[in-house]
Amino acid sequence: MTPPSELPKAVCLLSGGLDSAVTLAEARAAGFETYAISVSYGQRHEVELDAAARVAEALGAKEHRVVAVDLSAIGGSALTDDIDVPKDRPEAAIGEGVPVTYVPARNSVFLSLALGWAELLRARDLFIGANIVDYSGYPDCRPEFLRAFEGLAEVATVAGAEAGAKFRVNAPLLEMTKAEIVTRGVELGVDLGMTHSCYDPVVTEEGVSSCGRCDTCILRLAGFKEAGVEDPIAYAEVIESDG
Amino acid sequence: MTPPSELPKAVCLLSGGLDSAVTLAEARAAGFETYAISVSYGQRHEVELDAAARVAEALGAKEHRVVAVDLSAIGGSALTDDIDVPKDRPEAAIGEGVPVTYVPARNSVFLSLALGWAELLRARDLFIGANIVDYSGYPDCRPEFLRAFEGLAEVATVAGAEAGAKFRVNAPLLEMTKAEIVTRGVELGVDLGMTHSCYDPVVTEEGVSSCGRCDTCILRLAGFKEAGVEDPIAYAEVIESDG
Repeated sequence: MTPPSELPKAVCLLSGGLDSAVTLAEARAAGFETYAISVSYGQRHEVELDAAARVAEALGAKEHRVVAVDLSAIGGSALTDDIDVPKDRPEAAIGEGVPVTYVPARNSVFLSLALGWAELLRARDLFIGANIVDYSGYPDCRPEFLRAFEGLAEVATVAGAEAGAKFRVNAPLLEMTKAEIVTRGVELGVDLGMTHSCYDPVVTEEGVSSCGRCDTCILRLAGFKEAGVEDPIAYAEVIESDG
Repeated sequence: MTPPSELPKAVCLLSGGLDSAVTLAEARAAGFETYAISVSYGQRHEVELDAAARVAEALGAKEHRVVAVDLSAIGGSALTDDIDVPKDRPEAAIGEGVPVTYVPARNSVFLSLALGWAELLRARDLFIGANIVDYSGYPDCRPEFLRAFEGLAEVATVAGAEAGAKFRVNAPLLEMTKAEIVTRGVELGVDLGMTHSCYDPVVTEEGVSSCGRCDTCILRLAGFKEAGVEDPIAYAEVIESDG
């Protein structure tokens, strides 16, 4: 059997954070030619987009595109509005309820944009770093959401309508703990120092420091600690996790 | 029976074109307090957004928001890229196949944005001017797409995930001919002179003229003619329809 002349294509949502970087690496490891898409959505941490560009290049994405979407015109989240992100919350509290960082319908918008590009590329696979261990309060990270989006994709596209194409929404990290994601990232050779997670980074002339105190910093630090891996990024201050 | 103290809310996609204006009027006539949302997506005809603002005000929308989405970063359509829109096509040819003005996954993106706002407003009804008579080549105008989006909305939102809320995607013009839409607009008191349909308008100091030759101008003119209504907007030139 001769190998196919072309790798199948996958469109990968890439925020520049730890999870999406490892997801992109998973897509590559699964044999896809990857097309990374980042969404600039009026979030405070535009510094994530710089991280996304570095990660896309380092992980050999064929292309990386940034789509600007002004979700602040709708609002409703600490990531789009002028709402303080919580600090120093205990790890156990982070996964409870709907966080103030929830952006209404964000993953529906993001996957729709990825689907639009996939249709042009004739790709059938989308990758998203959705996770239900740490983000149980986000409805649009759940498996039933991902399956519903696959159903939508089939009827929303010319490929689906005319040729019955099926789309897959792959979420390889869906049920991993943060420590497992760190370990998997190391296994896949991801330079985790390129990734950025903090909701409230400090940007100085020397570079970017993560706050060490917002929910994502706390989850990230606990995950690295549990995995026994040193987090290579810079922190302004680090609160010792109780975990 | 006492009337409810508050009207139910509906989020209405409003491009500023004829169909979405009549759709907004239908939502109001059905007893909703309307919230109009327009998407600025790098389309050539930004003049539509001015029309949308006028229409929203004239039809008593409670609020009108414009969300900028740079779909040209993905491309693939004459409406986002530097591709000529076809001119002088016979009416019968316009509905055939996938038009160059098809924007991949556009209605998925637009409805997702509307859904995000609906979640914040606690609205359960979305309105869209989708139509399958004139736009049979757009997969994301079909009833199966609209139903699939309702299914997605239920699992994509906190309201759906936590309280089992059902969302409705209303497309009151879905099976109307353009003439029927014109007639209905007149019945509902829509000032059709405020609407804008042309893909390639001419903007001068005197105002905006529609080209009269692109697909939407041809469909619009034929619709008004068939309805026996004079189209109040200005045209640079009008090709007589054979119809």
